[in-house]
Amino acid sequence: MVTNDVVRYYHGLMKATVIAIGSELLGVQRLDTNSLRLTAVLDRFGVELIAKSVVGDNEEALVAELRRRAADSELVLVTGGLGPTADDVTRPATAAAFDRGMQIDEGLVDHMRQLFQSFGREMPEVNRRQAEVLDGATVLKNRRGTAPGQRLEAGDCTIFLFPGVPRELEAMIPDHLEPWLDSHAQNVGHGLETGVVKIACLAESAVEERIAPAYERFGRENISVLASPGDVKVYFSARGTEAKRRAELDEMRRVLGELAGDAVYTDRDDDVLETVVGRLATDAGKTITTAESCTGGLVAERLTRVPGSSAYYLGGIVSYTNELKMQLLGVPESYFVDHGAVSEPVARAMAQGVRSRYGSDYGIGITGVAGPGGGSEAKPVGTVHMAVAGPGDDDVEHRKVRFPGGRDRVRKQASQLVLDLLRRDLVRRS
Amino acid sequence: MVTNDVVRYYHGLMKATVIAIGSELLGVQRLDTNSLRLTAVLDRFGVELIAKSVVGDNEEALVAELRRRAADSELVLVTGGLGPTADDVTRPATAAAFDRGMQIDEGLVDHMRQLFQSFGREMPEVNRRQAEVLDGATVLKNRRGTAPGQRLEAGDCTIFLFPGVPRELEAMIPDHLEPWLDSHAQNVGHGLETGVVKIACLAESAVEERIAPAYERFGRENISVLASPGDVKVYFSARGTEAKRRAELDEMRRVLGELAGDAVYTDRDDDVLETVVGRLATDAGKTITTAESCTGGLVAERLTRVPGSSAYYLGGIVSYTNELKMQLLGVPESYFVDHGAVSEPVARAMAQGVRSRYGSDYGIGITGVAGPGGGSEAKPVGTVHMAVAGPGDDDVEHRKVRFPGGRDRVRKQASQLVLDLLRRDLVRRS
Repeated sequence: MVTNDVVRYYHGLMKATVIAIGSELLGVQRLDTNSLRLTAVLDRFGVELIAKSVVGDNEEALVAELRRRAADSELVLVTGGLGPTADDVTRPATAAAFDRGMQIDEGLVDHMRQLFQSFGREMPEVNRRQAEVLDGATVLKNRRGTAPGQRLEAGDCTIFLFPGVPRELEAMIPDHLEPWLDSHAQNVGHGLETGVVKIACLAESAVEERIAPAYERFGRENISVLASPGDVKVYFSARGTEAKRRAELDEMRRVLGELAGDAVYTDRDDDVLETVVGRLATDAGKTITTAESCTGGLVAERLTRVPGSSAYYLGGIVSYTNELKMQLLGVPESYFVDHGAVSEPVARAMAQGVRSRYGSDYGIGITGVAGPGGGSEAKPVGTVHMAVAGPGDDDVEHRKVRFPGGRDRVRKQASQLVLDLLRRDLVRRS
Repeated sequence: MVTNDVVRYYHGLMKATVIAIGSELLGVQRLDTNSLRLTAVLDRFGVELIAKSVVGDNEEALVAELRRRAADSELVLVTGGLGPTADDVTRPATAAAFDRGMQIDEGLVDHMRQLFQSFGREMPEVNRRQAEVLDGATVLKNRRGTAPGQRLEAGDCTIFLFPGVPRELEAMIPDHLEPWLDSHAQNVGHGLETGVVKIACLAESAVEERIAPAYERFGRENISVLASPGDVKVYFSARGTEAKRRAELDEMRRVLGELAGDAVYTDRDDDVLETVVGRLATDAGKTITTAESCTGGLVAERLTRVPGSSAYYLGGIVSYTNELKMQLLGVPESYFVDHGAVSEPVARAMAQGVRSRYGSDYGIGITGVAGPGGGSEAKPVGTVHMAVAGPGDDDVEHRKVRFPGGRDRVRKQASQLVLDLLRRDLVRRS
């Protein structure tokens, strides 16, 4: 790549900061998520993100922020504020912060005018502002919108101005940021990469306890645990050249997998539990049906989120009433009288009923008290009976659990546990 | 409230900044969400948030950040970094930033020791650090954790140090932040409050077009539109004394409601479409069943998310195969041959079948191609047929739509549209 840039080499880690511009990002409805996309790229190139901030559409505040961040870091990534209206202060603020002039680039104006024409519209005069280029800056073409980006050098710092619209920013990353990092971030040998193991139905504290030896061995700062109801993700990172860090990640994955044991359902970032169940069912050539009460269709919905699930999922029943449990699943009326709708016999009968009536290898049955109403002393809110029937006629596994939390958490945890029971059965037989 | 504080009055808007501390918040997995909670409180008291930032567990970086933010604003809210380990740099960094000493408060140590004992544990010696109090600071009791907060004055600025654990912070807000704002934010007459109208199944651009006159009348900066698949939320804000802003919000709500018309399904922030359908069904004393193919249980799952839904939702069928559509819903086999599974006759038969077989007032039927596979030239991915049968025997409403986007978006939009059809029918008859 031939450029007029002064190429600088950073022998330590290059330090970067990210600034998101927009008063809407200071409200209660929105968070800046663009910075996560940028962070992933910085990580990969071994650039250290030392701070990120959000500033409103206020020129004075942005001038101060730009100067401070440029003093702290060698790379400042700015998103947003490149629109055509008076609110959009990124261009003038950057000019003021680094004492630059700005000129309208008539070539850019023509290009924008053509863009508008291609949508059958006249370019509003106000959009000319988007063609203001800072003195000494390089224009960064935006193939998904009218606002071009810019890159400029100020002292020891390189500043990128990017559009804030996520899909426009997404295109700017491979078009402009990655090529620049590739030729300037000479610390690529410090590249950071992250792996994950995902664990179903263990408490966060239980996971922490199991993986404690890995903290010792690989360093606590390189392992982090993220928990959501019924699901714990253990992320681990390694730094170095690609070969070195890959080898280390493989070792971490192996060790963490051994420590966490058969509770690990995947080490692929894009897998969720239902993807794994789907893959195992496909490989085994087994089919699944579901009979749900308290989860109200959540298990069916999760199974069918997976593309191609029609290959192994036949269908299911959401039986919110006892009548439907009898009519559609063949649960004997006496069970309701003798044990109640939330009971082991009913869960078993639901699983067996849906399996045998609708001709699948596996049948799932769930009945419980999701709350907030419906609890009793004997069966408090959170009590759930789950059963997985199959693949043999006499195989039925049952679990009774009392889940903590509100309706939403109870339903999530119940769906997670029953899918994990099914996963474990498929694994055992594979 | 009697305090030794110097009470300062701010006649303009008090300016605030928020700093979240933690290297994990600079990674690719987490965002600082505490700031949203703090923003809501600041808004209510008429305090203006001018910037927020995230800094890693780095003392030097935090010292610089604290000094800058204290120079910019009259109130700095810091979250995180109050733990007992060497990583937790908020206390020493604040001491360094504002030239304060720190002393261990033995009373606090005793209190923490008791807390540990109440969990049956010995307090680790390292936790003594959490009792370090900055000279001149007020200790803020944390009723949900061991790390106390602190409040100190530095020049014209008040700095709050809060724990970063969300449920601990949640308790600190009413215990310490709100009382302080109540006696110090004398610009409560500038309090900001926000309302919402929610709109189903209109494109964002169509909503923008309809509400354009409201932008003119109330100011573009006071109205913001947030769109997700099949759902658009229009937020509007008013500032002033409680009486003034409430009156203005009522007027904005009325005008926006008129402009957006019957596409508005609620003006309550905690409502979602299924809550509204549930309320209408309860009021009308009508019951609902569902028959789903491409949405795979999503409509059932959404209806049953609502507490108390067992009063009007009887149950449903997820019929992923043609066999189950015939067996459980009575769809005639000839329909599949003559029209295909994704067709108007099949959607109508599913809705009527589920309604009549399982004895509800309304029956919902959905069949479509969610993708990514299964599309054809005649029925491309995104094609969905929907029907709502009832409450009369001959009432069946049908829609055919081709939704944009991938599997997840198609399913969401289909579930949204069919629930909105049901809502409109319930409204018409109410």
